[in-house]
Amino acid sequence: MTNVSPKTSVASQVRRNIAELSGYAPGEQPQGGKWIKLNTNENPYPPSPAVHRALIATANGSSLAKYPDPLATAFRMRAADAFRVSPEMIISGNGSDDILTMLIRTFVGEGECLRTPSPSYILYSTLAEIQNAVHEAFTFNADWSLSDDFANPDTKDGTPLKLAIIANPNSPSGTVLSPSRILELAEQLSCPLVVDEAYADFAESNCMDLVTKNKRIIVTRSLSKSYALAGLRFGFAVAHPSIIEQMQKVKDSYNCDTLSIAAATAAIDDHDWLANNRKKILSTRHRLVANMQNMGFDVTDSQANFVWCTHPQRPLKPIFETLKQHGVLIRYMQYADWGDGLRITVGTDEEIDVFVDIMKTL
Amino acid sequence: MTNVSPKTSVASQVRRNIAELSGYAPGEQPQGGKWIKLNTNENPYPPSPAVHRALIATANGSSLAKYPDPLATAFRMRAADAFRVSPEMIISGNGSDDILTMLIRTFVGEGECLRTPSPSYILYSTLAEIQNAVHEAFTFNADWSLSDDFANPDTKDGTPLKLAIIANPNSPSGTVLSPSRILELAEQLSCPLVVDEAYADFAESNCMDLVTKNKRIIVTRSLSKSYALAGLRFGFAVAHPSIIEQMQKVKDSYNCDTLSIAAATAAIDDHDWLANNRKKILSTRHRLVANMQNMGFDVTDSQANFVWCTHPQRPLKPIFETLKQHGVLIRYMQYADWGDGLRITVGTDEEIDVFVDIMKTL
Repeated sequence: MTNVSPKTSVASQVRRNIAELSGYAPGEQPQGGKWIKLNTNENPYPPSPAVHRALIATANGSSLAKYPDPLATAFRMRAADAFRVSPEMIISGNGSDDILTMLIRTFVGEGECLRTPSPSYILYSTLAEIQNAVHEAFTFNADWSLSDDFANPDTKDGTPLKLAIIANPNSPSGTVLSPSRILELAEQLSCPLVVDEAYADFAESNCMDLVTKNKRIIVTRSLSKSYALAGLRFGFAVAHPSIIEQMQKVKDSYNCDTLSIAAATAAIDDHDWLANNRKKILSTRHRLVANMQNMGFDVTDSQANFVWCTHPQRPLKPIFETLKQHGVLIRYMQYADWGDGLRITVGTDEEIDVFVDIMKTL
Repeated sequence: MTNVSPKTSVASQVRRNIAELSGYAPGEQPQGGKWIKLNTNENPYPPSPAVHRALIATANGSSLAKYPDPLATAFRMRAADAFRVSPEMIISGNGSDDILTMLIRTFVGEGECLRTPSPSYILYSTLAEIQNAVHEAFTFNADWSLSDDFANPDTKDGTPLKLAIIANPNSPSGTVLSPSRILELAEQLSCPLVVDEAYADFAESNCMDLVTKNKRIIVTRSLSKSYALAGLRFGFAVAHPSIIEQMQKVKDSYNCDTLSIAAATAAIDDHDWLANNRKKILSTRHRLVANMQNMGFDVTDSQANFVWCTHPQRPLKPIFETLKQHGVLIRYMQYADWGDGLRITVGTDEEIDVFVDIMKTL
């Protein structure tokens, strides 16, 4: 029997893909001080008052001592009504990041391939690395459209293609592929296609109806952005029951807690709140875009609660840094295959005014 | 380009290990009706009032619109104080099941080996299957002690041993290996050893101090049982900072939500509540054991909030079924390498009285 000294390095015992991983760096979440946060696409308004009422009703001790409903039935029933699908087509997660993790663990094994467009949500690549899978990135066309090559059955390095994900609207661009284009790609692809609709409530169209047209289309949603519940961690997927059934096996038994199920159920039912909030965000987005264009920025046409800006001459990183010194956080992003840009979340009118005032002094 | 019909079966596209998985079946969680739940080791008392106060203070909308602290710093600071370790030695999870998932994803790749004793927590085997890893189970000795073979560097099928987990106290037995025995096994093992201490607050000893003696010992804890917060989903691991650093890469960025961080921080700080609750549970456990023994059951000496009972003559499954008809849920368990038994959670004195009254009529 080998007697290993307690001094043996632990890092040498973790999986190689984990040891080599630098780890996903989410946008800054300062825990103190007074910041204007335009960096992580949070909603600047508080959630529906119905959420608060549901939480107060659930926060009493006895309901917390028992395990939550593993299937989040209450939420699934109300969401099924809202989206006119059956509850068996819905699975809930601890944020849509949890849903994405489940999807990769369901479909993509070690050395198999996850395909996504690029630039897009950086987490996709991290999730592939954690799984020790291969991430194949297809660069968007200059107008943020996606070539038919995205549906090619062969991968560049010959690894088997197991899953594709398209963020729609995309981040950081805020651009959208039409539902007919998504359906076209899904029908050409040899693997299931996840449409990550974290920002779809701010868009003119979405792909929810496609899940009944193509069994291999999976739509994921988040309550973080359009329902103003980033702190709650609640997301869900809608797909054919045969997909949901497989994902149930992979999810943590009690992945959603009692409080978040109650709050999410209240939120998804408040259609008026959602419509009003959307109207405010879109109006402020319009003002933000106009201001950035007046200052000479190129602003990609956004259907999300953020805008992507580049500038023909000015270096962008110093702008991000100066804003931070003034207490305004935006996101500076740099992609090897695309270049850099500023992603600015749509805040309140007042927050955007402060941002624009600082921008004008730079 | 292959044009695959939308009718293609999705189940055929999931990973083989997932398709073949029957999925972990947690204990029943009836969502309606009036049950006496003695089946999933929940605490029968409501959590500390400080938890309720923390939730009320956090449930207002604006704090939920922003992402939570990805590192749960507030909780880690208070837990570090409580356990006299540094915050860098603590990582929090969405329940200790989330922590176990992180550990397996950090250390065990496809085709590599996770070793645990048996019978033990059934989830270990499911987590290995989801990872497409090998689960090697070492049957406990008849007195629930564990042979030195558990630390053997070679696995039965030659797959590389990457992680070992010992539930301590163990479920379903409620038995404990002493800290000196755990340290001995850890020093012999060629891989890190997780000590799953979900029930340790009910025991006479625990292994928290060992993490500073051996860098490869990882202690996991849950707030579900001893803090009466199963509905909240909060667990944590304590280990050398070099292990925590690797686990951080694998965890979901925002795995704990704003409400659960606030509630868990309040709970971990209320040492008096914990001590009082423990006293009540241990007193009722004593009564439960005496009653079962009076009825002719063999009751394993438990250091947890449940007891494991067998009977020299009586078949056990009908007892479970009859109790269920009377509105009392306990757990009937059947292990291929061990046989069957009844696992009964320690409820309130009143709940145990109802249970015992029904038992006496059987």
